Amino acid sequence: MTDPQDLLRAMFAAAIGAAQPAQCLPPFLPMRPEKGRLVVLGAGKASAEMARVAEAHYGPPLEGLVVTRYGHAVPCAGIEVVEAAHPVPDAAGERAARRMLALAQDLGPDDTVLCLISGGGSALLPLPAPGVSLDDKQAINRALLKSGATIAEMNTVRRHLSAIKGGRLAAACAPARVVTLMISDVPGDDPSIIASGPTVGDATTCAAALEVLTRYAIALPEGLSKALKTGTLESVKPDDPRLARNEAHLIATPQAALEAAADVARQAGLAAHILSDAIEGEAREVARVMAALARQVVHRGQPFARPCVLLSGGETTVSVRGTGRGGRNVEFLLALALALEGLAGVQAVAGDTDGVDGAEEVAGARIDPDTLVRAHALGLAPRAMLDANDAHAFFAALGAQVITGPTLTNVNDFRAVLIT
Amino acid sequence: MTDPQDLLRAMFAAAIGAAQPAQCLPPFLPMRPEKGRLVVLGAGKASAEMARVAEAHYGPPLEGLVVTRYGHAVPCAGIEVVEAAHPVPDAAGERAARRMLALAQDLGPDDTVLCLISGGGSALLPLPAPGVSLDDKQAINRALLKSGATIAEMNTVRRHLSAIKGGRLAAACAPARVVTLMISDVPGDDPSIIASGPTVGDATTCAAALEVLTRYAIALPEGLSKALKTGTLESVKPDDPRLARNEAHLIATPQAALEAAADVARQAGLAAHILSDAIEGEAREVARVMAALARQVVHRGQPFARPCVLLSGGETTVSVRGTGRGGRNVEFLLALALALEGLAGVQAVAGDTDGVDGAEEVAGARIDPDTLVRAHALGLAPRAMLDANDAHAFFAALGAQVITGPTLTNVNDFRAVLIT
Repeated sequence: MTDPQDLLRAMFAAAIGAAQPAQCLPPFLPMRPEKGRLVVLGAGKASAEMARVAEAHYGPPLEGLVVTRYGHAVPCAGIEVVEAAHPVPDAAGERAARRMLALAQDLGPDDTVLCLISGGGSALLPLPAPGVSLDDKQAINRALLKSGATIAEMNTVRRHLSAIKGGRLAAACAPARVVTLMISDVPGDDPSIIASGPTVGDATTCAAALEVLTRYAIALPEGLSKALKTGTLESVKPDDPRLARNEAHLIATPQAALEAAADVARQAGLAAHILSDAIEGEAREVARVMAALARQVVHRGQPFARPCVLLSGGETTVSVRGTGRGGRNVEFLLALALALEGLAGVQAVAGDTDGVDGAEEVAGARIDPDTLVRAHALGLAPRAMLDANDAHAFFAALGAQVITGPTLTNVNDFRAVLIT
Repeated sequence: MTDPQDLLRAMFAAAIGAAQPAQCLPPFLPMRPEKGRLVVLGAGKASAEMARVAEAHYGPPLEGLVVTRYGHAVPCAGIEVVEAAHPVPDAAGERAARRMLALAQDLGPDDTVLCLISGGGSALLPLPAPGVSLDDKQAINRALLKSGATIAEMNTVRRHLSAIKGGRLAAACAPARVVTLMISDVPGDDPSIIASGPTVGDATTCAAALEVLTRYAIALPEGLSKALKTGTLESVKPDDPRLARNEAHLIATPQAALEAAADVARQAGLAAHILSDAIEGEAREVARVMAALARQVVHRGQPFARPCVLLSGGETTVSVRGTGRGGRNVEFLLALALALEGLAGVQAVAGDTDGVDGAEEVAGARIDPDTLVRAHALGLAPRAMLDANDAHAFFAALGAQVITGPTLTNVNDFRAVLIT
């Protein structure tokens, strides 16, 4: 068999590769319109790279405007690339959103808009609806995050407080045709949720948004409460005639990335099992469950026979309590190593497919059965480092980091547990 | 197909049934010795019921002493049943431990000891080693629990501070033969860990115990430190000649209980997959992972085809923050219902196989896709109740509790997620 650590590296690379705009975007690019303009709009961590790939595909001239995260810009010839703040929006994002709406309103029936959407696009296009202040929006957002509302509930509210999301950008483009190509980083891959769906019809309503705000007792300024009650903030519905000629395609998803990794494993002669493309939960607790599964495979050949690979995606969370250098994927891995206690035959890789796990330019790391032994030999205290949320420092000291550089795409977390 | 909720009930009942002393003990009971005495000793939540089953099997006369938790006694004819405190030991447990050692020292080579061990036995037989005060033991125990030491590390220390555990009870029984029959409630089913193995040789050493205490910087009284260094507190090793004629058998395990539930599912025509017999972790986070797995099965037929049942055991934990009435299994279930958001086709049961989840005489509960809808209709706030650790109140209001009464056995948690 291939060296296990090489196989782990190859699976992670395949997952990222499957989500690279250069690989997954061209097959979905529409024909240039015969008479009208082709205008590229976009938002998200991958939007600049997607724009670059579109330029390479069509050749000049190509016009448009995309907004991406600071540091994620790549040079484009005709398409303007703007950088803005993520995850907390800033004025650069708001200016870009206003300009994008203005561009959209300038289009005619012969024009085609190519809208390139990826994760992070919601924060990168912050534009409060008329009558809603940025302060209101931020206060409601903070209250929602603390309320225990589900992601779906929060998104229902957010799409109704925006002047550009919930299909509003597409409506502004009418009568032009809009082709939206999306890289998904959300559980369930719902197009209306990725970047809050600026070009996708929204089936939820003002009434539903108000119900969520009432359920979690979130205070509203009177004007906003009235606007929701009377429906003046209604988002653009899927059956809106302005969206009739539009289409949207997922060009990369967490699931497709996992399938690409599974193919690599199968080519190496290993059974691959995709547990989920959308695991959420506290990273260290997810690790304990994964360790229990691996142990069952090792000791009892259940629920899968050895050798095999357990693949999963999604987005775990870290409740930060320490002051260390960490990220959710390396926190998962350090907790996994501790829970496995050196169990023979189990190795793993975990990383963020955007190449940045937490705040560092490190994608993730790898573990093997000797990880804890090597750590102790180096004088590291694995459990204390986990408690300090210091997993980047842990894997740096071990020389077990996975560094890819910015991948210019994002299909969220990738985890592979290899059991030989 | 059988009604899903009936099937969930039947699987839980089968899991408990497989661990009932009346079902699993008789096949392992040894012959009465030809000449000598047959003496029954035992400790654990199931020990009184195990003693009762032994009496029914052998008929009178049968002598001995077992210690069980307050409320877990059942009437025996010849065997004395003592009740003591769990999980925090009390003087009744210590008196019983002293008397048990005295009984053991009174035996000859023709005698056979039947030792009946189940979960909880460690706390029910508290007897500090000579030179160790109960205060010392308790202080070290508290420090260990806070230190981040693994369960294995904690047990290594505990077995070296006891006068009865770590094989010492068996050594005291020599030259009598000792047959130990155990119901396991621990991950890995290690006989030396169940009830801290009073009749099972202990492969760990004083030096290892000292290393753990040093690693986690746990302060020791000078006398105790010296006793560990010089090895005067050494436990009884597996190759000790005093244990030469002894044997130990696991008569019930979490895995066997899960297999019994799997058989019920298969007889109903459903594929059953045992994910793990030893899942640990925060109950609500374990639920989120389980929900992600169920969602993958529903949406993609991965990693298992529908219909199927996902079975798991182990012992989750609850970090109590609220003031509600809860238990780890019902907390898991309420969090699962919230994470599933009414996903069609997914139902589940979870419960403690001892019949007591948390502090209430309720074993667990059941959920179905309408659980949240019914809760909202009743004016319940599921997320707020989860935050208040109030899952027993939640399921009581819904009429979805599973009540078995004390089952007189314990193979820990049982979870079944049925996906149709």
